[in-house]
Amino acid sequence: MPQGQPLTVPDDGLTTRARRNAPLLAVHTGPGKGKSTAAFGMALRAWNQGFDIAVFQFVKSAKWKVGEESAFRELGRLHDEHGTGGAVQWHKMGSGWSWTRKHGSEVDHAETARDGWAEITRRIAAQSHDFYVLDEFTYPLKWGWISTDEVIATLADRPGNQHVVITGRDAPQALIDAADLVTEMTKVKHPMDAGRKGQRGIEW
Amino acid sequence: MPQGQPLTVPDDGLTTRARRNAPLLAVHTGPGKGKSTAAFGMALRAWNQGFDIAVFQFVKSAKWKVGEESAFRELGRLHDEHGTGGAVQWHKMGSGWSWTRKHGSEVDHAETARDGWAEITRRIAAQSHDFYVLDEFTYPLKWGWISTDEVIATLADRPGNQHVVITGRDAPQALIDAADLVTEMTKVKHPMDAGRKGQRGIEW
Repeated sequence: MPQGQPLTVPDDGLTTRARRNAPLLAVHTGPGKGKSTAAFGMALRAWNQGFDIAVFQFVKSAKWKVGEESAFRELGRLHDEHGTGGAVQWHKMGSGWSWTRKHGSEVDHAETARDGWAEITRRIAAQSHDFYVLDEFTYPLKWGWISTDEVIATLADRPGNQHVVITGRDAPQALIDAADLVTEMTKVKHPMDAGRKGQRGIEW
Repeated sequence: MPQGQPLTVPDDGLTTRARRNAPLLAVHTGPGKGKSTAAFGMALRAWNQGFDIAVFQFVKSAKWKVGEESAFRELGRLHDEHGTGGAVQWHKMGSGWSWTRKHGSEVDHAETARDGWAEITRRIAAQSHDFYVLDEFTYPLKWGWISTDEVIATLADRPGNQHVVITGRDAPQALIDAADLVTEMTKVKHPMDAGRKGQRGIEW
């Protein structure tokens, strides 16, 4: 419920206003559904406030396209053409990011993931966006491709008012400790358990 | 990961195609964040597939407007004016639904909630929409305003291919048993615990 009141007032020397405007680091983790979906739902709110949004999907295939991507591209177009909402960028790792030029057999997923994080680091330093979704970003952390300590340090020192949402299973404990908002999605029941396959409009 | 394969093939006499197209009943429950947000994220996918979407928010105040509502109204306009995506309707209970005419002191929230469910029942029978979000709908069930058994029976018998997502804490066990997909959102950490207040673009 958004009307919630804080239970305690922290002894951090900040005014309520400063605290209200503190940039958020959110983590959606756990084995259940809805981690990415809820992050994109948050991005809808951010878009509506006119925030500049950048999504970075750390996925192995750039071919896979979820409906959210298409919908956000339409919302980004509304911004570009009519000034409604915020700007939207949507980047997928796949076999290389749009700003790199790698092809086929030369692709090293670990290196590509590191390239993605390096670009995000530059953008955070430059305050390029207001709202970042780092989708499936826990996996390169878990696999040791990107240093969790470095990510936490970069996010802790980020300038301005840049919100960051990170999704994926098995978020490192240090990242959870560093985050302001952590939700674990637990699978209670999933249709694939009953032998159903994914379907149009639901899974993609 | 949407590419998942089912672990078992059910002995339900359905073809894979029939099973794939079976309408989904999803429940997002638990004390954590992201229940509604993930439902609206699912609705983004549905919109992108051209599904006709109807959101019914069982909230006490119609004044409260989340960013998702504004964003979906824009998406609905894209459909109406350019044929992009699906149609969108967004209804809020508040002190009466848009199709009722109640005002001020005569408002009975329980009765209003039942009016909402009666309308949804009619629309389900008429197959008015492809994708329903019944947001915060577990509360009128929990409080006994609407019969959980009746809801389950209506949803079990719904014709055609109508997907339904229900959100809210404390979903009744019978509803969980009846659902195809159930995710529990668990709060690991919330900024309000640290004395922060909700903020623009994040909480609304």
